[in-house]
Amino acid sequence: MKLSECPIDFDVEGQQMHRLAAELFPLHRSVTGQAVRSTHEILSRLIPLTVTEVPSGTDVFDWTIPQEWRIRDAFIADADGQRVVDYADSNLHVVNGSRPVNAQLSWDELEPHLHSVPDQPTVIPYRTAFFRDAWGFCVTESQRDQLRRGGPWQVVIDAEYFDGSLTLADSQLGGSSDETVLFHCHTCHPSLANDNLSGLVVATHLIKHLQTRDLRLSYRFVFAPATIGAIAWLAHQPRSSLERIKHGMVLTLLGDSRPFVYKQSRRGNAIIDRLVPRVLYEIGQSHRVQSFSPTGYDERQYGSPGIDLPIGCLSRSVHGEFPEYHTSADNLDFIRPENLGQSLRACIEIVNGLEANVFPINRFPMGEPQLGRRGIFRAFGEQDDRGLFQSAMMWILNLADGEHDLLSIAERSGLPLNVINDAIEIMSTHGLIDTSCISDRERFRRYCDVARFVEGRSPPDHT
Amino acid sequence: MKLSECPIDFDVEGQQMHRLAAELFPLHRSVTGQAVRSTHEILSRLIPLTVTEVPSGTDVFDWTIPQEWRIRDAFIADADGQRVVDYADSNLHVVNGSRPVNAQLSWDELEPHLHSVPDQPTVIPYRTAFFRDAWGFCVTESQRDQLRRGGPWQVVIDAEYFDGSLTLADSQLGGSSDETVLFHCHTCHPSLANDNLSGLVVATHLIKHLQTRDLRLSYRFVFAPATIGAIAWLAHQPRSSLERIKHGMVLTLLGDSRPFVYKQSRRGNAIIDRLVPRVLYEIGQSHRVQSFSPTGYDERQYGSPGIDLPIGCLSRSVHGEFPEYHTSADNLDFIRPENLGQSLRACIEIVNGLEANVFPINRFPMGEPQLGRRGIFRAFGEQDDRGLFQSAMMWILNLADGEHDLLSIAERSGLPLNVINDAIEIMSTHGLIDTSCISDRERFRRYCDVARFVEGRSPPDHT
Amino acid sequence: MKLSECPIDFDVEGQQMHRLAAELFPLHRSVTGQAVRSTHEILSRLIPLTVTEVPSGTDVFDWTIPQEWRIRDAFIADADGQRVVDYADSNLHVVNGSRPVNAQLSWDELEPHLHSVPDQPTVIPYRTAFFRDAWGFCVTESQRDQLRRGGPWQVVIDAEYFDGSLTLADSQLGGSSDETVLFHCHTCHPSLANDNLSGLVVATHLIKHLQTRDLRLSYRFVFAPATIGAIAWLAHQPRSSLERIKHGMVLTLLGDSRPFVYKQSRRGNAIIDRLVPRVLYEIGQSHRVQSFSPTGYDERQYGSPGIDLPIGCLSRSVHGEFPEYHTSADNLDFIRPENLGQSLRACIEIVNGLEANVFPINRFPMGEPQLGRRGIFRAFGEQDDRGLFQSAMMWILNLADGEHDLLSIAERSGLPLNVINDAIEIMSTHGLIDTSCISDRERFRRYCDVARFVEGRSPPDHT
Repeated sequence: MKLSECPIDFDVEGQQMHRLAAELFPLHRSVTGQAVRSTHEILSRLIPLTVTEVPSGTDVFDWTIPQEWRIRDAFIADADGQRVVDYADSNLHVVNGSRPVNAQLSWDELEPHLHSVPDQPTVIPYRTAFFRDAWGFCVTESQRDQLRRGGPWQVVIDAEYFDGSLTLADSQLGGSSDETVLFHCHTCHPSLANDNLSGLVVATHLIKHLQTRDLRLSYRFVFAPATIGAIAWLAHQPRSSLERIKHGMVLTLLGDSRPFVYKQSRRGNAIIDRLVPRVLYEIGQSHRVQSFSPTGYDERQYGSPGIDLPIGCLSRSVHGEFPEYHTSADNLDFIRPENLGQSLRACIEIVNGLEANVFPINRFPMGEPQLGRRGIFRAFGEQDDRGLFQSAMMWILNLADGEHDLLSIAERSGLPLNVINDAIEIMSTHGLIDTSCISDRERFRRYCDVARFVEGRSPPDHT
Repeated sequence: MKLSECPIDFDVEGQQMHRLAAELFPLHRSVTGQAVRSTHEILSRLIPLTVTEVPSGTDVFDWTIPQEWRIRDAFIADADGQRVVDYADSNLHVVNGSRPVNAQLSWDELEPHLHSVPDQPTVIPYRTAFFRDAWGFCVTESQRDQLRRGGPWQVVIDAEYFDGSLTLADSQLGGSSDETVLFHCHTCHPSLANDNLSGLVVATHLIKHLQTRDLRLSYRFVFAPATIGAIAWLAHQPRSSLERIKHGMVLTLLGDSRPFVYKQSRRGNAIIDRLVPRVLYEIGQSHRVQSFSPTGYDERQYGSPGIDLPIGCLSRSVHGEFPEYHTSADNLDFIRPENLGQSLRACIEIVNGLEANVFPINRFPMGEPQLGRRGIFRAFGEQDDRGLFQSAMMWILNLADGEHDLLSIAERSGLPLNVINDAIEIMSTHGLIDTSCISDRERFRRYCDVARFVEGRSPPDHT
Repeated sequence: MKLSECPIDFDVEGQQMHRLAAELFPLHRSVTGQAVRSTHEILSRLIPLTVTEVPSGTDVFDWTIPQEWRIRDAFIADADGQRVVDYADSNLHVVNGSRPVNAQLSWDELEPHLHSVPDQPTVIPYRTAFFRDAWGFCVTESQRDQLRRGGPWQVVIDAEYFDGSLTLADSQLGGSSDETVLFHCHTCHPSLANDNLSGLVVATHLIKHLQTRDLRLSYRFVFAPATIGAIAWLAHQPRSSLERIKHGMVLTLLGDSRPFVYKQSRRGNAIIDRLVPRVLYEIGQSHRVQSFSPTGYDERQYGSPGIDLPIGCLSRSVHGEFPEYHTSADNLDFIRPENLGQSLRACIEIVNGLEANVFPINRFPMGEPQLGRRGIFRAFGEQDDRGLFQSAMMWILNLADGEHDLLSIAERSGLPLNVINDAIEIMSTHGLIDTSCISDRERFRRYCDVARFVEGRSPPDHT
């Protein structure tokens, strides 16, 4: 597996991902409900998905699965039935999770239930009322003005809560090792494109790509409503299954054109935390790194102290820090095919780095092996970066002691991951390097022990 | 206990401390003798003090308690009995610990026994002759000139050494834990105000303050002559008593107007070393930090390799580095009530930080607990810094794993100690946090174990 | 042993070393052969050397000792027998290790066997053909021009390979401890002065110096052909012998006038890695430090993962990075007596630092010992840097806990190594310090235990 030789046309992938996002965009997703299921159905045309329904009332750690929410219609209309605010225009108009209402209200009565963004007068904000008894409408500033000047208003939200379930989906790809990489996307946002249709479509195409490969690691993709969905998923995992998760990222906000942001896992120095910035640098993607904080997306749940998994978050914009965040401006124009393509590429390169991250072991650890007679320099002859390859070879031989993985060798030598990976493969072919998936000091010691000191000298001391 | 809500008028305290220093100022303290006892008597009107007399000849580690020194009079007079230098004017005139002398001396004979400061001609220096057979006078430059032009001189020091004792005093305040904080002041300096009456009066008022509080930690205040006094005190402690001392500071030079200086303990990374600069920063006191060195005050003895306690030193000026040091210019004008008040406040805030420095434990460590239903956001509603409180709450929940104390949470989150402390208290009231005085990974594990995974899934793996 | 008081005239030593290099210069050294033996014979007039012959065909780790190479004559001549290129002029003319040839060749046939340096037209490069079946000539650009314009050419290399041996030499100096310091020089380069006659002559004079001293540590000097020689030497050592090697350096490129370069051992933080830059700084030699890399000289073999000894490399120029490298410009004019003298001094000071690097133990670890009655300040009285000595004394007493060696004390205190060393010696004489060659926390604990707490207090807790 070459780290940077994926036969993928990221332009084409980007366009496909954007079209998929466009298909998902109109669905009125919420923490629970039919639109999440429809989202899974659309994705399952492309990838295998296992769907889990968690019934209302189920306890999941400190939480209880709420009733399911269903909405049919909602509007604010004048005495003539003329709708000033209409759910049919945008599902953002209704505060997500609103209780039903059907009343005639004056402006003063209506106003506390309205949400708009004064300094962005043309956008509809996205607001939620989960886990509390409330209702409301989200409107533009001009709608608010119009409502203020009129009334009384007929206010209808034709919604209901009922015993149903919360819906999770999960996709697994087995590799030769049960060391598992987890990717997580939240699925509960309605017509918002970057947050988080971008994550969903990148994850979907990443799964499609992984299905074409022989994998060393196992992969787990989780699609779940934010917070309670992630908690419900975690609460349903056997602890042993969680313990196999060694790396992971939340994928979100991957469609806009800003530079990448990698937010570290709670541990801060996990392999994923060290690998992602290096990969982004090596593929020429400008980026910045944020240390972990307990706010943001569902890395919060994976990073809660009783779970404490090494799950970071890859995004471009940052949660809550861009003007389009949680407004109707986070639409299909805001995400671009080329950016989705770049994001997919970044994910694939990160996977490549994880796949390649073995602990090479030098089979001839006493002094340098004699490379000349093995023709190994000729094996590098066709490479562009022959000098880099020779340097990589020397560094690998030097550090392949069962305590350095590929990432550590890259960090110490300053050489690119893919050059080291290729050199390990060639040297493995030539019998110089034994590769192992795990740190293996013992196997290295055995190679040391079989290296023969000159007869008559060493044996007396060796025992 | 709120970290920064002490109902104390530091202006009033400052004036009281300055008056106390003025009362102590005239006493002619030395390594041994009556003036140290009188000093303790004055302080014991305000605070409980246990006095220990260590008899002359007692071995204390590598040292032996010397004979006690007593002085009645001293002068240099001309043939007419006119005193040019008179002990009655300043006890600094006599080299502290001088052997007796009564002789008529020419200028040439007298001169080797005179001390003055050429570049500070109007001050009397402070010099000592402990542990050696010597005598001398400390004079201004103009006195030196006058003596040079005259003679022979009648030189009298009416002093004596006799079997007596060295005097220590100690004040203890028990808390609910035997984890002990030690404060140390040296008591052997005569009429010098900053060095160290300032330390004595701040320590005394700190004790007065602590007597009004319910304390979690225990406190120990040591008043002892420099070096041998500290060594004598240490030599009299059971080793188990020393082992209970987990934090501490030498208090000295706290009355002048320079910014605070915190000198780290020998360990350099003890809790006290990390806490003090953070507290000074949070209360807006400019300060600098010095790493440990084996010169200075009695942090040297606490930091000797066989003792090695985490005792730093809090001061404003630095030992030996200010012009008034060990001269008659270190007088009652040099220390100011407002500075003494600030110093007391700094000490109290440091104590507050130590008192608050528990290891909080998250009772719901798997995923985030559901905060909404607990009304905890309303509990923060009256606070000024509601945003900070929410951030603190999330950080505390995330780090309350039995391995992070309050200080570590502040360091990682960048939030103020008192906000974290208040948030811990509110969350404790709401049953979210269990507080423990010590690192308690085991208790945390129990909360993890009782968090129920969804039935039928987790148990098989859990055993 | 004073760190910087060596009664050595480094000017004289420098001239002697340069004359020795001049004597060694003409010999046509190779990986094997008579010239290496002659080199050892010349050195053995000055120092004790143990020579080992390793027969052709011996397996040494992954390598096999090759046949021995012998050359008698070589030239390129025109039809008249006029030699254009003559081995007698410079042994660099023949590619080192060339197979024999005797043929008449056209320019086109000859050209692939010629080596020159276009941008250094007047120099002869140094090229090798070890371990492969090849031959060639190294020429100046003007020789190349002349050859191009003529032909056919009579081309003769009168050389042969035969079953013989590879020659190693070794010099050992025993000290009171078997903790061993290793110095390594490569011996296989023909008429090249800096690379590596400079290393050979500095090592030789370092041995001469060490023979005059009482040594605490043991020393081992290895003279061996590059790569296979070092590997052969390692393969012949009992493992226990390698384990005694605690410090070391490869010595090479020590005759030019560039500032010193210290290349760290693979470990990067070994005592030698921390000591060498400090010593160079203290003796006023500008220098830079390079981190380890698996290219360069035989530190590669000592730093191979199965050997992993703390062996750095001391040089002035850097391997491959100076224009004279591996050309006829690396001649006796390129190395200067004064530079060789400085290099010897640096090596001796490094040895001094290693010799002095004990773990002092404070015999009076509880509080400060009473220095006044021991007259120890008078012992410093004749020193120039009395203030430094007092500071050193306080730091040593503070850190002499069996966990800090002299180097650690220097690092923490910022004081010079030789001041600390002298202070340790004086304090040892006065019974304050016990010196030990190794970290000795247990001995320190015993001094703590015998320090008597005041009777009646401590014993109950002490058990």
